[in-house]
Amino acid sequence: MMLSSTSRLSSRSALTRVFSTSTSRTNRAIVYSQPGNPGTVLRALTYPPLASPPPNTLNIKFLLSPINPADINVVEGVYPAKPALETSLRATGAGSKHEPVFVGGNEGLAEVIDVGSGVSGFQKGDWVVMTRSQAGTWASSRNVGSNDVLKVPRTHGSFSLSEAQAATITVNPPTAYNMLHDFTRLQEGDWIVQNGGNSAVGQAVIQIASTLGYKTLNFVRNRENLSTLTDYLHSLGATKVLTYDELADKSLRGQVKEWTSGKGIRLGLNCVGGKDTTLMAQLLGQDAHLVSYGAMSKQPLSLPTSLFIFKNLTAHGFWQSQWYAQKGRKEQEKLMKTLVHFMSQDGLKAPEHEIVSIKAQETDEAASEKIQTLISRIAEGRYGKKIMLKLEDVEH
Amino acid sequence: MMLSSTSRLSSRSALTRVFSTSTSRTNRAIVYSQPGNPGTVLRALTYPPLASPPPNTLNIKFLLSPINPADINVVEGVYPAKPALETSLRATGAGSKHEPVFVGGNEGLAEVIDVGSGVSGFQKGDWVVMTRSQAGTWASSRNVGSNDVLKVPRTHGSFSLSEAQAATITVNPPTAYNMLHDFTRLQEGDWIVQNGGNSAVGQAVIQIASTLGYKTLNFVRNRENLSTLTDYLHSLGATKVLTYDELADKSLRGQVKEWTSGKGIRLGLNCVGGKDTTLMAQLLGQDAHLVSYGAMSKQPLSLPTSLFIFKNLTAHGFWQSQWYAQKGRKEQEKLMKTLVHFMSQDGLKAPEHEIVSIKAQETDEAASEKIQTLISRIAEGRYGKKIMLKLEDVEH
Repeated sequence: MMLSSTSRLSSRSALTRVFSTSTSRTNRAIVYSQPGNPGTVLRALTYPPLASPPPNTLNIKFLLSPINPADINVVEGVYPAKPALETSLRATGAGSKHEPVFVGGNEGLAEVIDVGSGVSGFQKGDWVVMTRSQAGTWASSRNVGSNDVLKVPRTHGSFSLSEAQAATITVNPPTAYNMLHDFTRLQEGDWIVQNGGNSAVGQAVIQIASTLGYKTLNFVRNRENLSTLTDYLHSLGATKVLTYDELADKSLRGQVKEWTSGKGIRLGLNCVGGKDTTLMAQLLGQDAHLVSYGAMSKQPLSLPTSLFIFKNLTAHGFWQSQWYAQKGRKEQEKLMKTLVHFMSQDGLKAPEHEIVSIKAQETDEAASEKIQTLISRIAEGRYGKKIMLKLEDVEH
Repeated sequence: MMLSSTSRLSSRSALTRVFSTSTSRTNRAIVYSQPGNPGTVLRALTYPPLASPPPNTLNIKFLLSPINPADINVVEGVYPAKPALETSLRATGAGSKHEPVFVGGNEGLAEVIDVGSGVSGFQKGDWVVMTRSQAGTWASSRNVGSNDVLKVPRTHGSFSLSEAQAATITVNPPTAYNMLHDFTRLQEGDWIVQNGGNSAVGQAVIQIASTLGYKTLNFVRNRENLSTLTDYLHSLGATKVLTYDELADKSLRGQVKEWTSGKGIRLGLNCVGGKDTTLMAQLLGQDAHLVSYGAMSKQPLSLPTSLFIFKNLTAHGFWQSQWYAQKGRKEQEKLMKTLVHFMSQDGLKAPEHEIVSIKAQETDEAASEKIQTLISRIAEGRYGKKIMLKLEDVEH
């Protein structure tokens, strides 16, 4: 929450004041005291209504907060981005001890419910997303610095953004868009190659590339109902969908040359690593860029040095959190507008998803159990769909 | 030699004319008809005196031509840069058959002995080096396009370049300089890290970095007389010299942090590959560049994807031949001036070397045997020093 100690103090005294009114609604967040197994350490915590927002901050109410794979790694304590300990969420209820906690969640859509003094560019009812990473989005309402959020246009012409589209707009679509945009200048008709074609980013890549007129060669794992997946990715705009088994076949290189009419592929996107990525890199042409944003195989990126020296390959990484940290507000807003524009053209669907609600009347105990079970199942890869949390205010 | 068919014809008739005079000297080159084992396929070939140079060409006489490791790979046919078949070298002597050949050698110092019409910027007595790769430098005299050579200043103030310095100026020193210069902007006091610290490029890196005020952390193989090597590299300007065994020790990271006062190292240079490079990459700081120019271990470059994503590592390759192919004459000349300037400050010594002469009176058979033995020994790594060829004109 990055409040200065002064504003935190003022926030506390304001909090006591508001807490004493009878119309207030208390809040709930999914928190943990120590990193560890998410199926054990996560719990629901009820905390008092927010005070009026201190200067330069906003009170926001989360509408929908995705649970992304990286969020689980953060709770486990194995992700490089660490959340800050939160000292301002004081548990309500008799006998509840007060200790600092971490609030889970990195991504989420929220609505502005109150605007502090000195804040410009935001008003009540605006939709916002987080640009500060690990800000703790698995919560009903939070107070946030106005520099830590970004407004998302709710409409584009006659098109209205869905809550699910807006809630998933900060991580995967911009990762896809920036990777297509920042490393090499592509032109209509150019090819790109990627693995993890079925990942959330992979699907966004397919859609954005298709809208921009780039052709995509997409690799996915072989599976029982492969044609269902292949058909789906083609429906999103994929040019070619192949399996890693087909990638291992040496005849593929000649085939790819035919498809691309001999023009070298200059961009490869990697979220897998290991030998499948070594093989994919060999499909790249002269002066190509290989951009890694994940390592699902948990194997390192292993590439023949000759690709670097004689084919002038450059290997990069991409991390959207770093992008937000480095870019100014203008560039961030421009990115949001671009993505909403793609969405308005039906060029960027929300991921297939399921909404899990925590109702106001559920107890913290019941909510904790629900979350622990849910996260354990996600961690085991037992959901095909993206799960999004909806935490209702707790009536008081 | 890339002559047009017209100029080749005129060159042949001129050749007949010159060949009939009694003061001429014939030439010798080290050639091969088919790529293969250099200990078998290489042979000495005597060919007639050069004709007067056709328009836009120069006749040059090689003074000293290094045998570099990559030259051996070229003869073996396993190097990506292939020489062109040479049809203009017609063997002299009764019963000698005429067939196109490859001429060995990529690097060499030559003196201009005759200037064709239309050539500007060169005069007799100038020293030149090759910028076209695989031009065939293991020869006494050749005719070359004026665009394929670059003048090397013979002096800088009161400093005179040695033949050995000039003969080795085109590949290793510019590789070192460009790698230090092209990928990230270093400032005095900054650290760089490299493996193969004892390689020709490695030594040039140490010297240039030292002159520019950069600190170097150099890794070398452990060996019996390690301190001799360590002392030598320190005398060239190395800040730290460590072995790969020391690199494998996890405590090194803390040590490096102390040496660098916690400032991240932003440039790593790699000619080894394999696990030693994986470990070296982990010494790099945020936003670093790892530049590969060789793969002595014959192992791929294997890097944790997290370095790319979370530390924003970029991995590049560098190939000096590609640099020459892409840059204009002005940039090439500026590079030479820069390197000669370093040499004049005693900041770039010639590598330790041994000159192997092929005398005018030796027969082609004797010369062929000498070369085959020599190259076999070099290929086996039995020379600690750089070998440079000196082919004398054959008196006629």
